[in-house]
Amino acid sequence: MGKIKYELLKEEKNTKARLGIIETNYGRVNTPIFMPVGTQATVKTLSPEELKDIHCGIILSNTYHLWLRPGENVVDQSGGLHKFMNYDGPILTDSGGFQVFSLARNKKKDIIEEGVKFKSHLDGTNLLLTPEKSIEIQNKLDSDIAMSFDECIPYPATYEYAKQSTERTLRWAKRGKDVHNNPNQSLFGIVQGSEYEDLRKWSAEETVKLDFDGYSIGGTSVGEDKDTMYKMVDYAIKYLPKDKPRYLMGVGDPIDLIEGVIRGVDMFDCVLPTRLARHGNCFTHHGRINIRNQKYKEDFTPLEESCDCYACKNYTKAYIRHLIVANETFGARLLSIHNIRFLVKLMEDLRVAIKEDNILEYKEKFIKEYENK
Amino acid sequence: MGKIKYELLKEEKNTKARLGIIETNYGRVNTPIFMPVGTQATVKTLSPEELKDIHCGIILSNTYHLWLRPGENVVDQSGGLHKFMNYDGPILTDSGGFQVFSLARNKKKDIIEEGVKFKSHLDGTNLLLTPEKSIEIQNKLDSDIAMSFDECIPYPATYEYAKQSTERTLRWAKRGKDVHNNPNQSLFGIVQGSEYEDLRKWSAEETVKLDFDGYSIGGTSVGEDKDTMYKMVDYAIKYLPKDKPRYLMGVGDPIDLIEGVIRGVDMFDCVLPTRLARHGNCFTHHGRINIRNQKYKEDFTPLEESCDCYACKNYTKAYIRHLIVANETFGARLLSIHNIRFLVKLMEDLRVAIKEDNILEYKEKFIKEYENK
Repeated sequence: MGKIKYELLKEEKNTKARLGIIETNYGRVNTPIFMPVGTQATVKTLSPEELKDIHCGIILSNTYHLWLRPGENVVDQSGGLHKFMNYDGPILTDSGGFQVFSLARNKKKDIIEEGVKFKSHLDGTNLLLTPEKSIEIQNKLDSDIAMSFDECIPYPATYEYAKQSTERTLRWAKRGKDVHNNPNQSLFGIVQGSEYEDLRKWSAEETVKLDFDGYSIGGTSVGEDKDTMYKMVDYAIKYLPKDKPRYLMGVGDPIDLIEGVIRGVDMFDCVLPTRLARHGNCFTHHGRINIRNQKYKEDFTPLEESCDCYACKNYTKAYIRHLIVANETFGARLLSIHNIRFLVKLMEDLRVAIKEDNILEYKEKFIKEYENK
Repeated sequence: MGKIKYELLKEEKNTKARLGIIETNYGRVNTPIFMPVGTQATVKTLSPEELKDIHCGIILSNTYHLWLRPGENVVDQSGGLHKFMNYDGPILTDSGGFQVFSLARNKKKDIIEEGVKFKSHLDGTNLLLTPEKSIEIQNKLDSDIAMSFDECIPYPATYEYAKQSTERTLRWAKRGKDVHNNPNQSLFGIVQGSEYEDLRKWSAEETVKLDFDGYSIGGTSVGEDKDTMYKMVDYAIKYLPKDKPRYLMGVGDPIDLIEGVIRGVDMFDCVLPTRLARHGNCFTHHGRINIRNQKYKEDFTPLEESCDCYACKNYTKAYIRHLIVANETFGARLLSIHNIRFLVKLMEDLRVAIKEDNILEYKEKFIKEYENK
């Protein structure tokens, strides 16, 4: 038992893409990797066994949600999050910062030096989440990787706002690190700075000085266009050490994953595959489809012929369409399995492309097929 | 391939309870048996593999629902219901009569000699379901056992109404049998007669004359008290042949299952275990519990220590409570697995009790524990 160990195995010849391994207390993880999200200690509709079958390396769970329900002490008493949810693979917990930003978006929230005051999205209770509290909760959840508490800066933000927020996030990172107290849990720092090159540089350099076990690029997937997101990554990543994993938060679009990997990112997470599934949407190599479409009513072929997932091996589009149209949760489950497997398999393919130094060709071929439909 | 074969293995010494085997094209089924309900070609929240793990012998699916959505022709074109839903165990389909009764309850419906005119519960379309149409749909669904189209008589009903309805159900049974045309599908007749002894006798005798592959006792679980339901069974069952299976429709309460078995019933079905699960309710040998109860918040024991189901082997009450309170469908799935397994295991235990001629002792012990909590 102990903290994670990251090993950089190879850098791709023509890009910044990296092949690596993260050793955790719950097994080895090959990077780059996509992590499905289990917000409330469950990846929606799926069992731990199904996640294993999909070859998920790490899953993510949400500190904010587990703090409110069932409470970190319940999870702690059960023996930690792995035991609570019966998942013996690695788990990363976020800091709660993004949820305070997104769930409290339309409600009054008050960012002060101490932390963030806001109202619970469940019952309106007044809450204060601080860097220390976030780390204390994560220590108790006993995830493999904890995240520093940050402010996820809205987009767009003025330079002045972004600067003040980024400086505060750094002070919060230090406060969190000072109270972190779980020898089996690693702690990542988060780079902010919005779309401003000098702020991203400053944030990256100063966060690295605090010496975290990995680094995340935050403040992305908050409404900015794709080019801006890629810029945010480029501005920050060159100041991050090569011997630590890099994590781009909230990104799950297939093309964004490829672009992120090419820029040197090792880890991604997103609710996209499971959220799409609940709405009947499905990834394919010819673009997204919505299974509710009338044309699939008598389509007795799998979602994708080439896919090796449980849904594709055993069920037809016609059946899955029927389940989704009839509001049967087994439909969302089958689509969740397929969508997560699609992204996990994409990362497997990207790792092969890095090994073979042909990731740019892979990208071109993938995008051509994906966008032409 | 062909119709089912029923073999009566043993009658219990002190009661009318029977041990038997039903041979189907999709495997052998030991009776008495409880059949979970997969209304829309899926047992809510569960996969076929999970049903196998629970040792379900037969599942039931609903003709009315599949007629409306996705339509019997879609199921037919996919290769039949087994292939459509990827379930290679035996399937029984009901006739649609009960749904016309229950879903159209608060809407105008018109029972005429030809069949029942009513409005779709989905979009209000005018529909006419006839005995011929019900059988034709079931022929296409290609279930192992089809049911005759009947009127499920409301309770209470006047003698005059019950007599006229029971006579019409018999005429409908004959019309359905005349058009039945699937050599691999068996067809059951349904005994009606409400609470009236002479009508139940007449209905049973006349239905048996039509020579079906099995007989069902209908018009139960429609609001009558338990003693009346048991009477309805007693009035009918003595006129049913010993060499054919008997099926009591819509019954899933544990004590009702025991009482039914003791009265000579071989088959039962009910949505109860899955419906209870979705509301956080759970069968235990000490009575039903609701997992939402605050007292389970930090209860790190399984739903039942003695249970061999997937939920009990891997998860705690505290975790399942968390899932249900947080509206996570994995919670309903775990409780569905447990509740179905509870009833399936109850039937396994009853079969042992029949073998050992001690079903009355079993009943007494079970009820004492179940009702004392």
